[in-house]
Amino acid sequence: MRTVFFKNKPAIIATSSVGGPKESSGNIGEYLEVKSDDDTFGEKTFEKAEKKILYTAIGNSINNAKKSVSEIDAIIAGDLLDQIISATFSARNFDSGYLGVYNACATFTEAITLGATLINGGHLNYVVCGTSSHFSSAERQYRYPLELGCTRPPQAQWTVTGAGACVLGSGKGPKVLSATIGRVIDFGVVDVNNMGAAMAPAAADTLYTHFKETGTSPEDYDVIASGDLGALGSEILKDLIWQKGYDISRNHTDCGKMVYTMNEKEYQGGSGAGCSSMVFCSYFYKKLCEKKIKKMLLMSTGALLSSLSSQQGESIPGIAHLINIEC
Amino acid sequence: MRTVFFKNKPAIIATSSVGGPKESSGNIGEYLEVKSDDDTFGEKTFEKAEKKILYTAIGNSINNAKKSVSEIDAIIAGDLLDQIISATFSARNFDSGYLGVYNACATFTEAITLGATLINGGHLNYVVCGTSSHFSSAERQYRYPLELGCTRPPQAQWTVTGAGACVLGSGKGPKVLSATIGRVIDFGVVDVNNMGAAMAPAAADTLYTHFKETGTSPEDYDVIASGDLGALGSEILKDLIWQKGYDISRNHTDCGKMVYTMNEKEYQGGSGAGCSSMVFCSYFYKKLCEKKIKKMLLMSTGALLSSLSSQQGESIPGIAHLINIEC
Repeated sequence: MRTVFFKNKPAIIATSSVGGPKESSGNIGEYLEVKSDDDTFGEKTFEKAEKKILYTAIGNSINNAKKSVSEIDAIIAGDLLDQIISATFSARNFDSGYLGVYNACATFTEAITLGATLINGGHLNYVVCGTSSHFSSAERQYRYPLELGCTRPPQAQWTVTGAGACVLGSGKGPKVLSATIGRVIDFGVVDVNNMGAAMAPAAADTLYTHFKETGTSPEDYDVIASGDLGALGSEILKDLIWQKGYDISRNHTDCGKMVYTMNEKEYQGGSGAGCSSMVFCSYFYKKLCEKKIKKMLLMSTGALLSSLSSQQGESIPGIAHLINIEC
Repeated sequence: MRTVFFKNKPAIIATSSVGGPKESSGNIGEYLEVKSDDDTFGEKTFEKAEKKILYTAIGNSINNAKKSVSEIDAIIAGDLLDQIISATFSARNFDSGYLGVYNACATFTEAITLGATLINGGHLNYVVCGTSSHFSSAERQYRYPLELGCTRPPQAQWTVTGAGACVLGSGKGPKVLSATIGRVIDFGVVDVNNMGAAMAPAAADTLYTHFKETGTSPEDYDVIASGDLGALGSEILKDLIWQKGYDISRNHTDCGKMVYTMNEKEYQGGSGAGCSSMVFCSYFYKKLCEKKIKKMLLMSTGALLSSLSSQQGESIPGIAHLINIEC
């Protein structure tokens, strides 16, 4: 059994979201709490900028929940940088416990799965879950120096410069009913520019497991949002899950596909650990609070490579963790 | 409140440990399940070797628990490599759910904290928690190319080539009674060769919090084992906790201090995400099962730096997570 049920229905009592220039002028820009037209956010390096957007989202979510930092028992956070330094150095700013997590771009729903488990058991009262990514810090770590100005192939996605954080606890707000923990699935994709294809099989596996273990079907949800499969990866997910007997074409969307406008020409859309967290903590959270969406699945998706694993000839395994939310 | 109490007392029903040549001939060598006199473990790279020791420990622990992989609901694992690839690619070998965690060398007790929470709540039946490290993969990632043959200063530690994994569930075996989640504590240490000093303040904070929140004192435990403070860091911990009114000089030990013999001349001792897991899953687990140790605290300690955070002028924050075990 990979689905975890939360009888006590931990609530997402507040969120905060931060986006960079491209994200702020994109499709969900109007929903972001903090927008910036400067992708350095006033910092000297892109890595320090990423840290700043994450601790801003964490701090603001605590404020929005009308809590003090001393009431937050733990921060569960992660990001894409080596040794998840954005999360670590963000957590240093707060006096709460810290649990670092990493499942690439699936980290946000991993954090919520663990946070909701700690809240549901009555172990902790309030937990903040947050993730971030930054286009420029990710690009120069995983791919090429920015100064090279490399062109990208059409199957590529654009790492979101953004962060999202939410406060879990007992109280008002959309409830986390269950979570389905993903498996590492590897279909042998080796193209580091085609993350959507690498992650789609893991997404299909998690979604299928969720339907099977909860006895639900796509019709039971208003929205099924994957994390950052992008346009191409989304089509693969729809095909794979169709082969398993489920049609999600009516209510499926993808945070990566949503984030940029057509004019921004970001090929397959956004990606990054901050993609699903930023989109969920802004757009989806508002729609849930307004009851325009009543039941949704959020399934962040991660490509579990490193520069070194690719250099040593490894393929790119994927993973997806899913949370079931109801307003 | 940062201490999590497990009313249903999840059991550590089996463990497995793997060590490299230096570890196998060290103080706890005789307790290791798998010893090797080849630090490549028959693999082409040190990174692939690290992956192999971790999936060996995970697989063996499942066998030792007399379970099949299909009975394991989730693997919670982490390591020191960028994007925790040892854990990810190990998890790929198993059909279970996977939750990647990272708190540097404090990852093992972080994993057990989360695993025990999932078991305690009745969410999952069996969870494997495991971590690894490898001297050569860590050295060339964090410090210098091995070919340079750099000498190390006397305050340095030696990254353990080893892995440990344990199966949590309901059943026979030492019980996890509670866990205290650590905070990120930064005393401004910038010497990347002096991890013990960087981590000791976080260890003192977690230990003090544990005593305070559980109403216990050092006398209540047969052993208080820190993760990899080493000889120097251990002295700092004893001083800091003494200043808080607790004397742990009688029953404190440190996995890093234990692992190598005097002849091996590893300065302050061992370190690495595999240090506390390998020592716990071999020596301490055996002593607990034999009831030679009845009550112990295991507190893995982590230095949360990356090469890049140090290059950008950051100090080294530390963290420590503690688990309370009783046979």
